Amino acid sequence: MTSTTEKTVTDMSVFEALESEVRSYCRSFPTIFDKARGYKLWDTQGREFIDFFAGAGALNYGHNNSRIKSKLIDYLTDDHVVHSLDMATVAKESFLKRFQDVILSPRGMDYKVMFPGPTGANTVESALKLARKVTGRQTVISFTKAFHGMTLGALAVTGNAFKRKGAGVPLHHAVSMPYDQYHENVDSLTLLERYLEDDGSGVDLPAAIILETVQGEGGINVAGSEWLKQVEQICRRWDILLIVDDVQAGCGRTGPFFSFEEAGIQPDMVCLSKSIGGYGLPFAITLIKPELDQWAPGEHNGTFRGHNLAFVAATEALSYWETDELTQDILRKGEKVRLALEEMAAKHPELQTDVRGRGLMQGISFASEGFADRVCQAAFQRGLIMETSGPDSEVAKVMPPLTIDDEGLDKGLSILEESIQAAKQSSTQ
Amino acid sequence: MTSTTEKTVTDMSVFEALESEVRSYCRSFPTIFDKARGYKLWDTQGREFIDFFAGAGALNYGHNNSRIKSKLIDYLTDDHVVHSLDMATVAKESFLKRFQDVILSPRGMDYKVMFPGPTGANTVESALKLARKVTGRQTVISFTKAFHGMTLGALAVTGNAFKRKGAGVPLHHAVSMPYDQYHENVDSLTLLERYLEDDGSGVDLPAAIILETVQGEGGINVAGSEWLKQVEQICRRWDILLIVDDVQAGCGRTGPFFSFEEAGIQPDMVCLSKSIGGYGLPFAITLIKPELDQWAPGEHNGTFRGHNLAFVAATEALSYWETDELTQDILRKGEKVRLALEEMAAKHPELQTDVRGRGLMQGISFASEGFADRVCQAAFQRGLIMETSGPDSEVAKVMPPLTIDDEGLDKGLSILEESIQAAKQSSTQ
Amino acid sequence: MTSTTEKTVTDMSVFEALESEVRSYCRSFPTIFDKARGYKLWDTQGREFIDFFAGAGALNYGHNNSRIKSKLIDYLTDDHVVHSLDMATVAKESFLKRFQDVILSPRGMDYKVMFPGPTGANTVESALKLARKVTGRQTVISFTKAFHGMTLGALAVTGNAFKRKGAGVPLHHAVSMPYDQYHENVDSLTLLERYLEDDGSGVDLPAAIILETVQGEGGINVAGSEWLKQVEQICRRWDILLIVDDVQAGCGRTGPFFSFEEAGIQPDMVCLSKSIGGYGLPFAITLIKPELDQWAPGEHNGTFRGHNLAFVAATEALSYWETDELTQDILRKGEKVRLALEEMAAKHPELQTDVRGRGLMQGISFASEGFADRVCQAAFQRGLIMETSGPDSEVAKVMPPLTIDDEGLDKGLSILEESIQAAKQSSTQ
Amino acid sequence: MTSTTEKTVTDMSVFEALESEVRSYCRSFPTIFDKARGYKLWDTQGREFIDFFAGAGALNYGHNNSRIKSKLIDYLTDDHVVHSLDMATVAKESFLKRFQDVILSPRGMDYKVMFPGPTGANTVESALKLARKVTGRQTVISFTKAFHGMTLGALAVTGNAFKRKGAGVPLHHAVSMPYDQYHENVDSLTLLERYLEDDGSGVDLPAAIILETVQGEGGINVAGSEWLKQVEQICRRWDILLIVDDVQAGCGRTGPFFSFEEAGIQPDMVCLSKSIGGYGLPFAITLIKPELDQWAPGEHNGTFRGHNLAFVAATEALSYWETDELTQDILRKGEKVRLALEEMAAKHPELQTDVRGRGLMQGISFASEGFADRVCQAAFQRGLIMETSGPDSEVAKVMPPLTIDDEGLDKGLSILEESIQAAKQSSTQ
Repeated sequence: MTSTTEKTVTDMSVFEALESEVRSYCRSFPTIFDKARGYKLWDTQGREFIDFFAGAGALNYGHNNSRIKSKLIDYLTDDHVVHSLDMATVAKESFLKRFQDVILSPRGMDYKVMFPGPTGANTVESALKLARKVTGRQTVISFTKAFHGMTLGALAVTGNAFKRKGAGVPLHHAVSMPYDQYHENVDSLTLLERYLEDDGSGVDLPAAIILETVQGEGGINVAGSEWLKQVEQICRRWDILLIVDDVQAGCGRTGPFFSFEEAGIQPDMVCLSKSIGGYGLPFAITLIKPELDQWAPGEHNGTFRGHNLAFVAATEALSYWETDELTQDILRKGEKVRLALEEMAAKHPELQTDVRGRGLMQGISFASEGFADRVCQAAFQRGLIMETSGPDSEVAKVMPPLTIDDEGLDKGLSILEESIQAAKQSSTQ
Repeated sequence: MTSTTEKTVTDMSVFEALESEVRSYCRSFPTIFDKARGYKLWDTQGREFIDFFAGAGALNYGHNNSRIKSKLIDYLTDDHVVHSLDMATVAKESFLKRFQDVILSPRGMDYKVMFPGPTGANTVESALKLARKVTGRQTVISFTKAFHGMTLGALAVTGNAFKRKGAGVPLHHAVSMPYDQYHENVDSLTLLERYLEDDGSGVDLPAAIILETVQGEGGINVAGSEWLKQVEQICRRWDILLIVDDVQAGCGRTGPFFSFEEAGIQPDMVCLSKSIGGYGLPFAITLIKPELDQWAPGEHNGTFRGHNLAFVAATEALSYWETDELTQDILRKGEKVRLALEEMAAKHPELQTDVRGRGLMQGISFASEGFADRVCQAAFQRGLIMETSGPDSEVAKVMPPLTIDDEGLDKGLSILEESIQAAKQSSTQ
Repeated sequence: MTSTTEKTVTDMSVFEALESEVRSYCRSFPTIFDKARGYKLWDTQGREFIDFFAGAGALNYGHNNSRIKSKLIDYLTDDHVVHSLDMATVAKESFLKRFQDVILSPRGMDYKVMFPGPTGANTVESALKLARKVTGRQTVISFTKAFHGMTLGALAVTGNAFKRKGAGVPLHHAVSMPYDQYHENVDSLTLLERYLEDDGSGVDLPAAIILETVQGEGGINVAGSEWLKQVEQICRRWDILLIVDDVQAGCGRTGPFFSFEEAGIQPDMVCLSKSIGGYGLPFAITLIKPELDQWAPGEHNGTFRGHNLAFVAATEALSYWETDELTQDILRKGEKVRLALEEMAAKHPELQTDVRGRGLMQGISFASEGFADRVCQAAFQRGLIMETSGPDSEVAKVMPPLTIDDEGLDKGLSILEESIQAAKQSSTQ
Repeated sequence: MTSTTEKTVTDMSVFEALESEVRSYCRSFPTIFDKARGYKLWDTQGREFIDFFAGAGALNYGHNNSRIKSKLIDYLTDDHVVHSLDMATVAKESFLKRFQDVILSPRGMDYKVMFPGPTGANTVESALKLARKVTGRQTVISFTKAFHGMTLGALAVTGNAFKRKGAGVPLHHAVSMPYDQYHENVDSLTLLERYLEDDGSGVDLPAAIILETVQGEGGINVAGSEWLKQVEQICRRWDILLIVDDVQAGCGRTGPFFSFEEAGIQPDMVCLSKSIGGYGLPFAITLIKPELDQWAPGEHNGTFRGHNLAFVAATEALSYWETDELTQDILRKGEKVRLALEEMAAKHPELQTDVRGRGLMQGISFASEGFADRVCQAAFQRGLIMETSGPDSEVAKVMPPLTIDDEGLDKGLSILEESIQAAKQSSTQ
């Protein structure tokens, strides 16, 4: 396969003619992708790209991971059940046992597993429903810059104004409180606690608090361990359920399997999707403390709760978690990314950057409007896939597959550095 | 593989111990499925089952359809991109072109295709959002016994009280009007029109009317062509958008590809999921009249909009629609099912049955509470998978794969007949 | 005082300069009123008007009723407490006893009296709150063309699109069902019952059904006694609270003190305002079945619950109800109005009129848009105050004080007849 | 009239038997009031009470103010129109002119006057409606511990949990932000501004900000002039309407006619009720900047917008504002109250008091739960009417009529001092 330096124009006319205007990433990355393996993608013209986006966190084990791939092909070849609604299947049983053995038991965790449908929004909507049912309360507290999904229930706890407006109806039953370090003049925990204890605060006692430990879409904002612990204590004190949305930050993205392990908290429910499917296949689970598993049979359902290819891929992917080798490697590579980003930041003080993140979920923000977008455009032209995040797209995200090797990581970081330089030059022209 | 008459107890303990109480079909069909092909399923003990459920309409082309299967294996083997968010891929391009060539163009239809995420609820939520955005109105009219999904936006236009209550919050911005033939003393169209034209009706002018032409979950209720045409005219008169949710009734279930072709109406938006994925893979699309495609890029998004295995399967499945052979075959087999059900009804007048449906989406209702459930239990014991529908589970549904052969169909219908007999006997004991 | 035939232009400039554009009746009746007594009003130029509007039902005992007036002057003169929040006062005690003795006891009714604030909207909001609290449910069923008030809770159960839109936010927790005789092709009771018993109807079991027995603002629509009885039975069967909003139709307007006495129903709560204040003073009460009086002290409050002038006037006004003399007189005069209206209707078949109402709450509708308004304008020019009602202002209302004498009634009806003739002529010019 | 020291048991049985459980103040002040004048009340047993409650701010000119009383008696005697809906009357014209001449013009203020119905909730609901209409937005920002009324629209911007819960439905379209000095670790203005400018805050751009400059029901919390000015600037910067609810703090309660005059801000709308009626008669007005007066005629209405006795009383009451004499007297007496309260606070450091307020709207809070209630009970036994406020009833309010003389004020304060002593003793027993 050839290098990406020659610029052949890709014919995107089919997409322009037939696909809805809502399409977006195909505008940022205007080419047609064909093949992929590990941290690499190739387009129809054979150009190679390093992937620092990883399916927005859905490809932690890389594209078309070969260990998983062979399991999928075997499963298909032998005509095992592929679609099964929520009937019992061998593939589902294997996943449940494996998840118990590799993830829950070693961590001393006791959760029931719910299959809420195959998307992040499904797991969030199911958790919110159950929290409201169990507590009999309706309000849910979420945080500034949170992102939890695009269906109406999930959107109501999402901060992004553009996404919220798309709802076309007012979004209710949610109160947005300041996230950790939202502003130096506002002690977010004091405010949260004050609102709860004050009978005149105008904020009803919530069913749940939902949070991401690192806000992926919100701009790679990291909640400190101490802050998370205190939120947990507040939940306990007020009998509020704590839901961690680990859809993007979970499955090892920050190092350990769950992003909240470092803080030592025990959420009442955990939402997982994206990389839990192992191979980029649609899949989501909701973990529920057994005493809260008060669902009636079928009270939440859906056609694609029994996506057996995803069970197979997810089961195999769990093999990465039999030891803490991957965690250590993520932390090591995360440190490398951190240093590289801080070096870039130091080199360009006038860009007023801020380096953020944990593990392989990092980002660098730029003060000037549109600058991060220009960095990512320059990166794409140089064969690197990166995306922005934050309400004003002010952060360039570094989220390669967790399994990336050092060569790929170094090369990607080097392209990023060049791209910052290029973006600077284009700004000053 | 052996017959199903011997009753070996299946060990369901893993599911009971680890999976949430919300699981349901695994309770109706208490065994562990392993393999499947066409209209047959086999459990771990080798028992064979005829499938008259077809993944609630997600398996119109049968389990593990061999034509599609080989395409999937090839795609995986050659490392084509599997997960791509909403970037452009070869697989997506092929699907778009094929859908245009095989489905839209021959029918003279002009729609943009949106990939709203992989579930039925995603396509419904996206259609409702867009309808509200385009019209600037908030109310949506849905119909009694409608089922459109389990996320909050979709649940608000769903009739089922049990599902609605699961929301844990009041459901708004929706008005439920009587469906065709809801009651002989209520002219549903007159009421609908009266509510719209009366400035004192208390029903705000809606953004859209959303309907299923045959209500699958609601009890196999069929809307007449004349009724559908008049609803369309009402929409035109009042500048209301018409959304057809063809998630279950579409993709040939009632004979033609779209369930509304017979009525000759032209919806403003069409929601497709379930069998559009071809192989039971999570997939959904929203069809949008071009002038309504007023989305801003990324205004609705989601991680699994680019599920390329589903593009591949969906593209291959469209081959069934190059001629009208399948449609004719569905109508022929539908007629056979109809006659068989009516014969059963005639044989058991005391059961106060009602036979309903179109094509291979048929059902028989029983007046006595719980009777339909007992029929399905008896069928399962005899090697036939069937499910009930309707708000009180009063209808036994006959929904085999569209590709079922006559032998399978006859055998299934014969088991159904036995099962009715058996249910009767168990009732009278 | 002089006749009204000479048209002197009244200077309305103070109102135009200083009062909000929201003012309305002063536009229909463009003069400045100064004095009033019984069924007569006089403007600053001494023109006399017969009042067939009676403060939209707030002046059942006429303007400045002399019996009540002397009580008010005495009360003021002697410095009895005028404003008392909800403290106990002699005036309040007298009212409570009198209401018990004259109204409740003779009718064998057992209700607690709540003082919810001085307006119709206050009593409606309080009844809805309590119904929701007692049942733990949130939905309330109201009817097409209902009018219950302008605050957000009351507006949600009001049908009028123009008024609803003024809310500026979507109105929730209410379902609008067809009122009696809404349309000949819709059996409103069948539909109501079907919606309640059908678990798939999309209408949640309501806390309450709220209705007016005659819809004053909605166009003088009369619910039949049989219909009311059946609604009551439906409420009993489904354990739904029945709230009668008797704000306009109560206090004798239809003949008996309560408008629902004829139907023999027993509402769980009754909302009274307007004429319960006797003299046009702001006052409202909510009657509550004792077992439903589950309020916590102060759970609903308000500054003007203790308007003692209104207690005094209301107490004195109850004297009219010591015998059934007034009721008989209302019915007799109502019959006279009926005959007169039907005669007018018969004389002008091309106006496609409909004569409606009960007691002294009657109206005549005209098919042609704007015609009823022109009738009222012509009446005003001839010295008769009348207003339109109905969502399209299609009904001219005849609602004189209940105490009007035959001379006044005849004269008013005669002006009305002339005014119809005049409106016809102006239309055909 | 005799002293209050002898304790005769009052027979409250009529109220207990016939009035709803929702009654509250008659429980705090368990006697039956008969007469009142100025700052004094007498019960049926002739016991005299000093009134430090003043109808919760509705009796700023004292009970049965003799100047106003004679106007009322004259008006009644001469049969001027008492009830007039929103027609033009001589009494209304006089009020409009007088309000313009005495209040608006001298302050250089330009407002249209709306008569929204006779209660505080009416004026608040009307202001919120108009703000939403004019801006096309739905959210309104209110503040912690705010109280704006008990109808659903007003309750949604009220902080008190007990009152909110009474709604029986979730309250929407409102966001509660921290009031001035809500907590020392939270800079309320920074947070407000950050939420508005951050596109990821989860708080939609509001139609309006509504606030009380001194929170009467919320615990006599005072907003600083600087804070108010900055809120006004934030409103201007973001094109948000500023609504001041001056229902309790207005009409001179804090010294000047409007409570916000000191801060020099110019609200877009002002809500007035309570003492604007002069004599404790139900009355409210909404002041609207002319360019915002975009109401359609009748878009908000109500039966008691034309309460002419209130126009008469209100017009006469405005005479107090022809000079600044009253303002000076209020400020002087306010200072006296302040000193007295601070002296009491200093005398009882162990009660952890906090003295708050402006003008004759002052209060003293006590840390121990229930202590303020005991103080008010002790005061009642000693012939002083006082009430608590704050979400936990932690503040004893000092709100005498503005026209109280020094003798009454001194006597009341002296009883308050005794009552604190008595409450302390009863606590320690």
